[in-house]
Amino acid sequence: MNLTNLNPKLLKAHYAVRGKIVARAQKLEKEGKKIIYCNIGNPQALKQQPLTFIRQLLALVEYPELMNHPETLKTFPKDIVERAKFILKENPKGMGAYTQSEGMHFIREAVAGFIEKRDGIKTDVKRIMLTDGASKGIQLVFTMLLHNEQTGFMIPIPQYPLYSATIDLYGAKQVNYYLDEEKNWELNESELNFSLAKAKEKGIATVAIVVINPGNPTGSVLSKENIKMIINFSAKNKLAILADEVYQENIYNKALPFHSFASVMEEMGEKNVPLFSFHSISKGFLGECGHRGGYMETRNVSDEVYEQMVKLQSIGLCSNTAGQIATFAMVAPPKTGDESFDLYEKEKNGILADLKEKAEILGAELNKIPGMHIKVPTGAMYAFVKFDLPAEDGIHPEKMGEEERLKHEAARDTDYCMKLLEETGICVVPGSGFGQKPGTFHFRTTFLPPKDEIKALVEKFGKFHTAYTASAGKAAVKK
Amino acid sequence: MNLTNLNPKLLKAHYAVRGKIVARAQKLEKEGKKIIYCNIGNPQALKQQPLTFIRQLLALVEYPELMNHPETLKTFPKDIVERAKFILKENPKGMGAYTQSEGMHFIREAVAGFIEKRDGIKTDVKRIMLTDGASKGIQLVFTMLLHNEQTGFMIPIPQYPLYSATIDLYGAKQVNYYLDEEKNWELNESELNFSLAKAKEKGIATVAIVVINPGNPTGSVLSKENIKMIINFSAKNKLAILADEVYQENIYNKALPFHSFASVMEEMGEKNVPLFSFHSISKGFLGECGHRGGYMETRNVSDEVYEQMVKLQSIGLCSNTAGQIATFAMVAPPKTGDESFDLYEKEKNGILADLKEKAEILGAELNKIPGMHIKVPTGAMYAFVKFDLPAEDGIHPEKMGEEERLKHEAARDTDYCMKLLEETGICVVPGSGFGQKPGTFHFRTTFLPPKDEIKALVEKFGKFHTAYTASAGKAAVKK
Repeated sequence: MNLTNLNPKLLKAHYAVRGKIVARAQKLEKEGKKIIYCNIGNPQALKQQPLTFIRQLLALVEYPELMNHPETLKTFPKDIVERAKFILKENPKGMGAYTQSEGMHFIREAVAGFIEKRDGIKTDVKRIMLTDGASKGIQLVFTMLLHNEQTGFMIPIPQYPLYSATIDLYGAKQVNYYLDEEKNWELNESELNFSLAKAKEKGIATVAIVVINPGNPTGSVLSKENIKMIINFSAKNKLAILADEVYQENIYNKALPFHSFASVMEEMGEKNVPLFSFHSISKGFLGECGHRGGYMETRNVSDEVYEQMVKLQSIGLCSNTAGQIATFAMVAPPKTGDESFDLYEKEKNGILADLKEKAEILGAELNKIPGMHIKVPTGAMYAFVKFDLPAEDGIHPEKMGEEERLKHEAARDTDYCMKLLEETGICVVPGSGFGQKPGTFHFRTTFLPPKDEIKALVEKFGKFHTAYTASAGKAAVKK
Repeated sequence: MNLTNLNPKLLKAHYAVRGKIVARAQKLEKEGKKIIYCNIGNPQALKQQPLTFIRQLLALVEYPELMNHPETLKTFPKDIVERAKFILKENPKGMGAYTQSEGMHFIREAVAGFIEKRDGIKTDVKRIMLTDGASKGIQLVFTMLLHNEQTGFMIPIPQYPLYSATIDLYGAKQVNYYLDEEKNWELNESELNFSLAKAKEKGIATVAIVVINPGNPTGSVLSKENIKMIINFSAKNKLAILADEVYQENIYNKALPFHSFASVMEEMGEKNVPLFSFHSISKGFLGECGHRGGYMETRNVSDEVYEQMVKLQSIGLCSNTAGQIATFAMVAPPKTGDESFDLYEKEKNGILADLKEKAEILGAELNKIPGMHIKVPTGAMYAFVKFDLPAEDGIHPEKMGEEERLKHEAARDTDYCMKLLEETGICVVPGSGFGQKPGTFHFRTTFLPPKDEIKALVEKFGKFHTAYTASAGKAAVKK
């Protein structure tokens, strides 16, 4: 068996967040080099502490015998013990049994309550499904909407590479639309129309549009007006919307609040555009990536269609129970007056304030580096940093075809990030892994490392950039 | 959006274990009817208790603060506390961080050690991958080996419907081979050759053969000779082997021990047949279905091919950490002299002895019912019960085409199982959900209900069967 025996779609698929550069970083780390992993939104790997509340709850439901020891019981807040008992009553089969395919019913009810409270809109528990993280929910919807190999999915550029990898793997067509970097990475209607028309010319039947809000890798937050435009565009062109809203709690500028697609759709009275929205325990202030939990909410989809989604989920039986319980903890946190409330609030606010501060430091400091440009992130956990590279003697990218040019420029930003890793130990992902406009270079970095390391990090970025661009024999020009 | 917009492959896929009959059972249960769920291998849903050892370990690693309370600490066996500390040392990022795509390294090492100890063969940690249950590993291999829509996978009939559902969903071709019911469901070489040749005639390129051992739904255990035959057949025909070995601990007859494909392959010195073998925490004596954990071991596959498997796994990031820890517990249980050892052995042996006894009672009692025939299960958690149905006036199935006949007979066994549910509350899966030879009728039942309920269960089967076949106006004839 060799590569020619394998699925050609798999060979084509590429997932930059865990690609070559990360493999090299792991190898260097084994050899003793200190690596700062800024390649992936994995907060607890960078010393963010889990919320005590979630872990206490998990310990009690995994091993309920703890509640029979009076001395042990004393060390748990009363409301958490009550909550564990409630879980065991609602799910008497315990953590070791398969659940319903869609997940435990009481957790799905709590998710519906969470959305109703967040948005002030009615939510149908029969349209809530618990998933092993958001990725698996997204792949479920892609699987369902894939009609044939001319089926197109609109995705932003830059995008989170789960989307491009899944499209390649499933043999669908990627219909790119560029985000507007100059306008804080918002979506532009004429760009959407242009992208859709170009796909149609190629015979692609576009069925859905993916929107990531807050943005990954951009760290931007969409305005309500921008979301309305997207919904109208989808209605006009009969597209479903996949709303990746996993960073909804990671909002750092009060002037730019989070608006869910569900709430804006309800406000508009839109009843025809199918909406699949995704949330996860991996991001926000929980950072419980390892537990693989999350939910998907579906709107404007008939019973017969939804039945097919449930069937698809049932083939993998159900999402994991610890992830389901952590999802419950996310959507039904301690309330005022609960014994655990103060600590929960303290931990939550501490994490969010820390992230906000780090976003601002990173943004301000990176912008001081000649040849680096960044929209200060107002959401999510990432900055998509634009950097200048000198022109190369005798090479004229502007004369290349688009594909050739992107490939050429991908080699350049990859070389840049690989050298950055080798010289500084900082592991970031090249912009070409997410997609970028021809003639531009970016990398994505998280702002998850501890605060006291961020300044040193930026200094390293600066020194490296200056040296790299100089050694290329050309000066990087600050626009 | 309606069904015509959806993936036609999804519409075709069918997963009987969670199909119509189960949906009806859940509805009846909500209405107050007592349902005995014999449709799915979900032991803890039927009162099997989790192993104390696993849950203690999970509680400690989810919430390590427990170890800072002396009174609490006293309630845990010392070796389990040591083990929790070991886990936190090996995986200092804790349960909330994404792990390596293949899973935590020390757990993969423990899996390699488990295989080496079980089989006395060398095992490469670089070929071990932790998965969200066996299903996800199996789907990963199918995805990788799918070349185009003429790619064929050989699967047993009867089979576990994950296989047929996945093949339909991925748009591959199902190449059926019948198991030999008269010879305890073993594989027959001439049947394999016949099946492969028939597929070739249809232009199907068969790339792999699936073997489930111990069998699901058959409850049978393959002999070493039978496994050798399969390996030789695969070598001759350049097929990869998918060995579904999730029931390897569920062995009830000492004369028919479990032989892993890896061990037989090593014994034969076979170095060319790619082998993917699967194990899970859901079955055996753990029954930790809800935690979704397991591993896949790969042999005779090159580095470049394996890299593609890791890439595919990386698109979903990693399997869930609680499932990984439970997998660690499965492969590295307490040892003689450990404080937790005696309880572990007692619980383990209790569960296995109970399953063995239930298999024997069910087998013996069902065989007494006129018109029911069963090979007493020697492995797994299921019996595939053959039952006679009277001929229907004026209908001549033997004159139908194979497809038409199977459809007609599927309607009959489904009607039988649905009426069984309505009248007795027993939920089993019709044989047509797994596949069966034309002219035969079966249902799959687990033998998981509590022992004191099994006799009553069989009585209900008997009464129902007599009444059902009589009311059909014909006598069921015991062959």
